[in-house]
Amino acid sequence: MHFADRLAERIQKTGSLACVGLDPRPDWLPDGIGAAAFCGEVVDLVRGKAAAIKPQLAFFDDDAGVPRELARRAEPDLVSIADAKRGDIGSTAEAYAETWLGARSPFSALTVNPFLGRDSLEPFLAQAREHGRGIFVLVKTSNAGSADFQDLRLEGGEHVFERVARLVHDLGANNVGSCGYSNVGAVVGATAPLEVVKRLRELMPRTIFLMPGYGAQGGSAASIRAALSKDGQGVLVPSSRALTFPWRPSPVPADWRARIVRELETMNRELAAR
Amino acid sequence: MHFADRLAERIQKTGSLACVGLDPRPDWLPDGIGAAAFCGEVVDLVRGKAAAIKPQLAFFDDDAGVPRELARRAEPDLVSIADAKRGDIGSTAEAYAETWLGARSPFSALTVNPFLGRDSLEPFLAQAREHGRGIFVLVKTSNAGSADFQDLRLEGGEHVFERVARLVHDLGANNVGSCGYSNVGAVVGATAPLEVVKRLRELMPRTIFLMPGYGAQGGSAASIRAALSKDGQGVLVPSSRALTFPWRPSPVPADWRARIVRELETMNRELAAR
Repeated sequence: MHFADRLAERIQKTGSLACVGLDPRPDWLPDGIGAAAFCGEVVDLVRGKAAAIKPQLAFFDDDAGVPRELARRAEPDLVSIADAKRGDIGSTAEAYAETWLGARSPFSALTVNPFLGRDSLEPFLAQAREHGRGIFVLVKTSNAGSADFQDLRLEGGEHVFERVARLVHDLGANNVGSCGYSNVGAVVGATAPLEVVKRLRELMPRTIFLMPGYGAQGGSAASIRAALSKDGQGVLVPSSRALTFPWRPSPVPADWRARIVRELETMNRELAAR
Repeated sequence: MHFADRLAERIQKTGSLACVGLDPRPDWLPDGIGAAAFCGEVVDLVRGKAAAIKPQLAFFDDDAGVPRELARRAEPDLVSIADAKRGDIGSTAEAYAETWLGARSPFSALTVNPFLGRDSLEPFLAQAREHGRGIFVLVKTSNAGSADFQDLRLEGGEHVFERVARLVHDLGANNVGSCGYSNVGAVVGATAPLEVVKRLRELMPRTIFLMPGYGAQGGSAASIRAALSKDGQGVLVPSSRALTFPWRPSPVPADWRARIVRELETMNRELAAR
């Protein structure tokens, strides 16, 4: 099944645009529960209530073992996106693509960095295509520093992020699912100015937007709305800290499991009320 | 000891600018020798004859375990650079920085991707500074696709790679070793046009250039020369396939160990004859 169709189905079945980020900060975990066990519990708690999960490799000592187990536990109920932001060239890109999107990978998608250019993304796309998986390309990230290079204005008036968007649209053009979206998604911060989100949607009409920064980083529901299609498709909203550690900065409460579920349900309601 | 000073010392002691890339392609390995064992042997073979090693994470199934063992085996004789091209924001960048450049890391340096901007690099720099390590920032990569974004021309006439170079220079300005180079290096393809290499050296006078693409990818000794200081400093030349599988496409010869050493000695002579 096409990656975008699988994702659309999960969004429809759960009524949720949420992608639960798994960033298990060691000092924030409940007493006596390790990162792997905590994330495993979270997967089970959000099953049927969120569209996807997104383990953040950096929080697992950059080791793929536990994230892989989490993806196996989550799929097929929850689409699993490896948030690794990999990017390299030639046979190295092929090796990464094989690891994250090849036949033996339990993940459905991988985040990738476009700085090295089109030829650095093609090996990822080849594996994604062959195995019904997807990639999410960084286009306009949610941090302040995204202005440093992504916002630079080019000769002719376009910004760097617009050129990346054109490439993303182009890469996905030949692989659109029956839901109308391609298997090449884009990371677009919900913190970006509304006109930037609108411009990016214009340039990438068939692209699923993964929109970090909602809530915790000040991203707005208006940005999410600007990116959604009329029938509420084409966007996935990742949330990590706000969803999985909603009690912070208070200490971990006894009912932390219920708190996580409640937080996700609140987020689902907010996003549904668009 | 400052990272750049350690590297300068290794270059001086070995008379070599070579950084031996460890990219163990499974189908290229000698019969009955796994990736970890092969790379371990290569480390021992090049000890005292090269300045550095550079395990490529992608070829270890993106798993840090074996690369870490190789770095432990190599250091302090060989400076160990983790070629992971990581790049992320906020607490995620901090987590990656801790993994690769923190107190427990056996590596001396890490390659990083600047696409997410200055604030995405600062956590790496903070760890590098604290622990006498270094980072190498992608500025102009050796692949054809590097033209797609890195070569874009900005309003005002500069290229994207020049803006990245300015940031690299700026980040390293406050941390220059007694050898005259900073702990913030730059990846600059030896395949780049000579005038680009010269311009980048102009913009980054205190930056160690890691220059992939020499030999196998068509990079020239002239590019290396253009980046070297008068006393032959400031450049490290990585080579992977050409150095560690010099017999390709012929099958693995019985004397493969001697072939690797001979290839490295030839490279050292070529680079010394500048």
